[in-house]
Amino acid sequence: MFSTEVKVRVRYAETDQMGYVYYGNYPTYYEVARVEAMRSFGMKYKDLEASGVMMPVLENHSYYLLPGKYDEELTIKVSIPELPKVKIKFLYDFYNEEGKLIHKGETILAFINMETGRPVRMPKEMEEVLSPFYQ
Amino acid sequence: MFSTEVKVRVRYAETDQMGYVYYGNYPTYYEVARVEAMRSFGMKYKDLEASGVMMPVLENHSYYLLPGKYDEELTIKVSIPELPKVKIKFLYDFYNEEGKLIHKGETILAFINMETGRPVRMPKEMEEVLSPFYQ
Amino acid sequence: MFSTEVKVRVRYAETDQMGYVYYGNYPTYYEVARVEAMRSFGMKYKDLEASGVMMPVLENHSYYLLPGKYDEELTIKVSIPELPKVKIKFLYDFYNEEGKLIHKGETILAFINMETGRPVRMPKEMEEVLSPFYQ
Amino acid sequence: MFSTEVKVRVRYAETDQMGYVYYGNYPTYYEVARVEAMRSFGMKYKDLEASGVMMPVLENHSYYLLPGKYDEELTIKVSIPELPKVKIKFLYDFYNEEGKLIHKGETILAFINMETGRPVRMPKEMEEVLSPFYQ
Repeated sequence: MFSTEVKVRVRYAETDQMGYVYYGNYPTYYEVARVEAMRSFGMKYKDLEASGVMMPVLENHSYYLLPGKYDEELTIKVSIPELPKVKIKFLYDFYNEEGKLIHKGETILAFINMETGRPVRMPKEMEEVLSPFYQ
Repeated sequence: MFSTEVKVRVRYAETDQMGYVYYGNYPTYYEVARVEAMRSFGMKYKDLEASGVMMPVLENHSYYLLPGKYDEELTIKVSIPELPKVKIKFLYDFYNEEGKLIHKGETILAFINMETGRPVRMPKEMEEVLSPFYQ
Repeated sequence: MFSTEVKVRVRYAETDQMGYVYYGNYPTYYEVARVEAMRSFGMKYKDLEASGVMMPVLENHSYYLLPGKYDEELTIKVSIPELPKVKIKFLYDFYNEEGKLIHKGETILAFINMETGRPVRMPKEMEEVLSPFYQ
Repeated sequence: MFSTEVKVRVRYAETDQMGYVYYGNYPTYYEVARVEAMRSFGMKYKDLEASGVMMPVLENHSYYLLPGKYDEELTIKVSIPELPKVKIKFLYDFYNEEGKLIHKGETILAFINMETGRPVRMPKEMEEVLSPFYQ
């Protein structure tokens, strides 16, 4: 399956008074991770939207194992566990600088034609790049 | 079971270029909803932390049914489906101004002694207020 | 001059590990304050955009006097110091629950025709409501 | 004077329904820029706090010249225009991918002893690194 690594450094803005990353900031990290994952196989989300397809989120699941901390560079292992059709699932495993798994996330997104508002299949270019990973 | 309603108005800051509420902002709305829910039965989360107990999030689940829109006043039906012990679960149903269910959320939090870092049972005062709802 | 009061409660998401409101969150409070100020004299920013006029920010100035704290209900005195023409200036004075002035802000926005991208004069309806305050 | 460049890529979370970077997100970019600037001359803000000195913001000024856009990699030229004493001023010039100046910012921060809450002089190590730039 397709899998890659993305790094993100925790900003002060993203901490809360508990001294850790605010729980609601992980979905933004997921966004960074999946956009960079797509960029790594040659797809820019920006271009996808420009071509008339958007990818709204349908479901999001987060598991907080250990706190993320200010200024840490987190490593996000992002993967697409199965070949997408009309939906795409991303998994995210977060590791801190000591290599400990601190967080797990899962997001399901749809492909939507922006003109009709209706679900469509994954764009062809994306299928061509991804399908070799699922054979 | 305990259940109440909390209202939140969508800020411009919370929209994204899709024109809707950014998916990562719902957990912040959940936080507002559960803090106001606790306030409605006489518990201030601020006082809880001051007394040495914090409530970090263990799990978060979000289901995006319809988009939230700028300036809408969303009604959040927040409930605690079972009497908490060492964990507490909150459910959130979001309705837009037309009364349509647009979003569902679920958050599981722990009670943690801030000094020892260890899980503790729900504070007594909270149990006293909540237990009548589960008889 | 036009002036009104808007209240905003500090969310946990808005604090940082210093234990205070993160400095970058005040502009969002300003947005809430000026949108509610406009609503108080019968203008919805949402309707303004729907009518083809947007109000991007040109300048923003913030003065941090005392920290804002979690769960405090801040009172924002928002005012429009002079009758707007092609720009509008908002001033914001933030008071905490003890009545202390903790923060001052100033924002200058333009009126922009969304089709042409060009500056326009303040919409008529807005001028009609505001001008009595400046005589 | 000391000056360096920091890059930041615009996240979807940071856009608003105008289709641009929300005006309130620039101060977070400033934070990233000055923390990376400090890292470039061997100071970690995290270590500074650990040593008992924090740097709260006193003033912030933002000038919005052109919109920032989703997925753009912005180049921030960050500089410290004069040798700091009890305060430090940072200037930020933002350039988009076409090399156009789109935004200017200025932040003044204090050095505060976290125990006493009182202003202190810039830490010695910082002065030693910075002073050669101002001779």
